[in-house]
Amino acid sequence: MTPQATTPAYRRLSVEERRSQLLAAALSLFAHRAPEDVSLDDVAEAAGVSRPLVYRYFPGGKQQLYEAALGSAAEELRQCFDETRQGPPLSRLSRVLDRYLTFVDEHDTGFSALLQGGSVVETSRTTAIVDGVRRAAAEHIYSHLGISDPGPRLRMTVRMWITAVEAASLIWLDEDKQPPVDELRDWLVEQFVAVLTVTAARDPQTAALVGALGEDDRD
Amino acid sequence: MTPQATTPAYRRLSVEERRSQLLAAALSLFAHRAPEDVSLDDVAEAAGVSRPLVYRYFPGGKQQLYEAALGSAAEELRQCFDETRQGPPLSRLSRVLDRYLTFVDEHDTGFSALLQGGSVVETSRTTAIVDGVRRAAAEHIYSHLGISDPGPRLRMTVRMWITAVEAASLIWLDEDKQPPVDELRDWLVEQFVAVLTVTAARDPQTAALVGALGEDDRD
Repeated sequence: MTPQATTPAYRRLSVEERRSQLLAAALSLFAHRAPEDVSLDDVAEAAGVSRPLVYRYFPGGKQQLYEAALGSAAEELRQCFDETRQGPPLSRLSRVLDRYLTFVDEHDTGFSALLQGGSVVETSRTTAIVDGVRRAAAEHIYSHLGISDPGPRLRMTVRMWITAVEAASLIWLDEDKQPPVDELRDWLVEQFVAVLTVTAARDPQTAALVGALGEDDRD
Repeated sequence: MTPQATTPAYRRLSVEERRSQLLAAALSLFAHRAPEDVSLDDVAEAAGVSRPLVYRYFPGGKQQLYEAALGSAAEELRQCFDETRQGPPLSRLSRVLDRYLTFVDEHDTGFSALLQGGSVVETSRTTAIVDGVRRAAAEHIYSHLGISDPGPRLRMTVRMWITAVEAASLIWLDEDKQPPVDELRDWLVEQFVAVLTVTAARDPQTAALVGALGEDDRD
């Protein structure tokens, strides 16, 4: 659909619909270009509206649009973490990683720009959004492992693994999405088990967990 | 020594000495406070000089001082990676980690502020400095492992582990430097072996390496 073709429908959008449309246009641009390479004109053109209309909805301009698009991407990512409590925990982790890696694949340039840092649009607010997603990932992991009160060694292990997964995602994007996504996913699950096993030798809580993981996987 | 006490000596410093003195003062402040909490007046006071003198050496003000101090900290960190080629590689890694963790301990607040991102002083230049240190760390690891041409799976594993070490350092600072530094160091070495072992099942280069590591450690 060209911008012209959307014009007849455009006056009929509600405020909320218009806002969502602009946000979707911004997110699709920020997903595939560095923030420096996206202008308000680009967003206006992608949404088939005028630049003043974009400003009416986002008076803070590009920074505000970027943060709103990031918030919306973060929400999408949190939804990737939703997983039923069915089957062995490692199979659940594998399914979550599948969805996460699909997200990374679909937001490649924006994902790299965001996590590599040093961008002009990075602020304490954008950092807080990203940290919120990391915390949500850790909480989902504890919850699926049936742990309500993770001790410091288990928490450090889980957070280190989450950071390592982010690093792997960035390298994967940098290396033309090699190795194939299925191999990357299995490898990350194996690393999760390996680092938990190392921690198990120093921490009874993790040791109990690793024992239970093994039993689940023999089902 | 109070600022007053340094005044008599101060005119006798060469340009290079004065610059080093200001940089040292800046680094000691940026090491223990968030960049937002360090002013040029603080640097002038710590160095026992006037604010205009600081500006004469660093006309770019706080941003320039921050980047210079960061460059100097990065150099210090690279020196931590220097290690003779004596003894088993894992013992060498352990000694490097000892020095690295001492550096983290001595630059706690600044280290956290830098790596947590979202700071106003973070730019593509500061990001490039940090990435340079990460690359140097990886190169040292390959060199000590006797590998001149690391393949993609080994490179990804090493870079993931380096990122996980950074994450562990931040969490360690956040958790009042617990667990004790010796335990953290040993745990990180064990994790290095564990993730390499996982990769070994997928990559012949890493498999050969893990075999050789085991032999070295039986020496």
